[in-house]
Amino acid sequence: MSDRGDDEGQPGVGRVEAFSDGVIAIIITIMVLELKAPEQPGVAHLWRLWPTFVAYVLSFAYVGIYWVNHHRLFSHARCVTNGLVWFNLGLLFALSLVPFSTAYLGGQEFSRDATLVYLATMLFPTVFYTPLQQIIRTTGARGEAAQRYHRQTLRKGVAAIVIYLAGIPLTFVAPVLGIACAGLVALLWFLPRSPIDAWFDG
Amino acid sequence: MSDRGDDEGQPGVGRVEAFSDGVIAIIITIMVLELKAPEQPGVAHLWRLWPTFVAYVLSFAYVGIYWVNHHRLFSHARCVTNGLVWFNLGLLFALSLVPFSTAYLGGQEFSRDATLVYLATMLFPTVFYTPLQQIIRTTGARGEAAQRYHRQTLRKGVAAIVIYLAGIPLTFVAPVLGIACAGLVALLWFLPRSPIDAWFDG
Amino acid sequence: MSDRGDDEGQPGVGRVEAFSDGVIAIIITIMVLELKAPEQPGVAHLWRLWPTFVAYVLSFAYVGIYWVNHHRLFSHARCVTNGLVWFNLGLLFALSLVPFSTAYLGGQEFSRDATLVYLATMLFPTVFYTPLQQIIRTTGARGEAAQRYHRQTLRKGVAAIVIYLAGIPLTFVAPVLGIACAGLVALLWFLPRSPIDAWFDG
Amino acid sequence: MSDRGDDEGQPGVGRVEAFSDGVIAIIITIMVLELKAPEQPGVAHLWRLWPTFVAYVLSFAYVGIYWVNHHRLFSHARCVTNGLVWFNLGLLFALSLVPFSTAYLGGQEFSRDATLVYLATMLFPTVFYTPLQQIIRTTGARGEAAQRYHRQTLRKGVAAIVIYLAGIPLTFVAPVLGIACAGLVALLWFLPRSPIDAWFDG
Repeated sequence: MSDRGDDEGQPGVGRVEAFSDGVIAIIITIMVLELKAPEQPGVAHLWRLWPTFVAYVLSFAYVGIYWVNHHRLFSHARCVTNGLVWFNLGLLFALSLVPFSTAYLGGQEFSRDATLVYLATMLFPTVFYTPLQQIIRTTGARGEAAQRYHRQTLRKGVAAIVIYLAGIPLTFVAPVLGIACAGLVALLWFLPRSPIDAWFDG
Repeated sequence: MSDRGDDEGQPGVGRVEAFSDGVIAIIITIMVLELKAPEQPGVAHLWRLWPTFVAYVLSFAYVGIYWVNHHRLFSHARCVTNGLVWFNLGLLFALSLVPFSTAYLGGQEFSRDATLVYLATMLFPTVFYTPLQQIIRTTGARGEAAQRYHRQTLRKGVAAIVIYLAGIPLTFVAPVLGIACAGLVALLWFLPRSPIDAWFDG
Repeated sequence: MSDRGDDEGQPGVGRVEAFSDGVIAIIITIMVLELKAPEQPGVAHLWRLWPTFVAYVLSFAYVGIYWVNHHRLFSHARCVTNGLVWFNLGLLFALSLVPFSTAYLGGQEFSRDATLVYLATMLFPTVFYTPLQQIIRTTGARGEAAQRYHRQTLRKGVAAIVIYLAGIPLTFVAPVLGIACAGLVALLWFLPRSPIDAWFDG
Repeated sequence: MSDRGDDEGQPGVGRVEAFSDGVIAIIITIMVLELKAPEQPGVAHLWRLWPTFVAYVLSFAYVGIYWVNHHRLFSHARCVTNGLVWFNLGLLFALSLVPFSTAYLGGQEFSRDATLVYLATMLFPTVFYTPLQQIIRTTGARGEAAQRYHRQTLRKGVAAIVIYLAGIPLTFVAPVLGIACAGLVALLWFLPRSPIDAWFDG
């Protein structure tokens, strides 16, 4: 049995990654189909697309960040268990709802309801990502780098959940605050070394 | 000639897998395009999407399970024959009809006709998958693990066909029973070791 | 320089194949989006989809056959020249028009005009495929198998062009004859050893 | 650590390429969805599609050229830094707007406004591509071939930006001149050795 190879007919880690890449690439790209070119001429009709455009930018960043993290996580995977396959499919399912809630957020022009649906969609993939991370932690690489990686992402993951949950009551105050929470999480993952790590590791 | 390599200009096993992955990734993802964001505000309009959503969940699980099984099967393939290429294309064709029947099932809100069309679409890929399995059984790996794999999946495959066929008369009683059959097959494949195996192998 | 590797910053053969696979996988799959689920209940509305469905089957077979041949051809490629990159992009462009003419053929219910557009779209990729084949013949593998492959596919290619061209006047007699020509070409490529080879090689 | 391998949980160069390939393959292919088959019979209705068709040809060439250059550039990459990942995602985002502005250009039949939006979309990816090139220049391969590659593409890149910017005032004279500028840039990249290189290198 090779290091990252097949375990009695299970797809190898590389193939799970390739399939996930395909699905995530499609999810991130079909969102642009919501950005429908106006049929009437004039800049005014173009300008009306701004809520859809802002929602698209935010969701592109969100899915892009998930792709980066998915690959960082899978670089530590060493074997394909049943749990890994199914939780990964669950994660892809959860991410596949992002185009829907993005279209809703843009179409409803950041209304309170649409923002709540959007925040819920942002939170949903965590339900599958956290167990997936746990599976790879126990069955994957065990070196110092892997340990530090899991420690840091666990912190980031908890911080992201807390910020999203804080976004729910804040959306009732003003939807823009809920959106700001989603933007804050994107920024947190975007930074190579998050302020949270600096705070913990000193 | 390498172990899983090219046979006089035939695409290698890896490339057939990669192409199949691409097609399956697109099939599984474009289904979400049917989940159209409501244009009117309010939770009531969102709620009306539930049949489309349930149909999407079921079909995502169905196609996801086919992907897992396709890869498990192909991990035993050793050479690319003409039969393998064409039956695999046939399988991809059959799977490509799933988004259509899913949209129909959701749009018709699980009517009897739509459920029958859906069950027929669930059964159709078997027409290509069973010969494909036979081809890989005769031209592929012959170890103990491969033998056990083929024995178990053959049982599961027969059980799935029987359950789907049972779903047809049951749909005439109540469509929900037909859908339950589709769900039961998903569960059967989802479990790492099916009750059928337990019953046969003791 | 490796056998199939990079030549001063040119993408490797493998990557040209992977990108082509991606594009062809999307082309073959988005055609199913034309098969729109009827909103009204009843088998009669389902039945009206038959022209779109037949057009889809034909085009799926057509693009699938192109994929198989593309890979067989590229298994003989050894280096990536500028000509190979651009003619391959041209081929992908020509194939990307298939979903359009398929939708037109189905929507116009196999009218004479739509059949002519369809046959033209079937012929168009040849404009790029034939030079591509020539490039790979001169820069690629030169073994006995490669020589025989190029000889056989050249014959098939010429036969396909002749049959498509014959389909144009036949469409003016009856569109179904033009469609039959497209089906005949599919059959010709589908068979592992075509009657043409049998006739030439005895 | 392998030559092009993982750096503490970063995705390898190959996977960044594969994901980019997936996204670019989808972008280049979904543009054809804008080419909607006319529902009414007759060549006249088909003929009315010409602005959409011309816009599609131009954008297919544009995205295809970006794919070729992306791969040439990444063949010199040796490690995956945070900057590379994020600027690459930014580039994919910028390219994902091409289907939108293409639909707008075709739908508005090459109006002045639509041409300006189109030229802006053509320029936008440069904002991410130029830093990406800089990153790969400093962290990637340093051989003679890589140096020459970076020198030549830098020139082409500057020339492209200058031509696009020149297209903006020219569009106010006549939109067709702006489109001609976009076509000129495509031609510049299409040629294996551009006139600019000939002029500089003598």
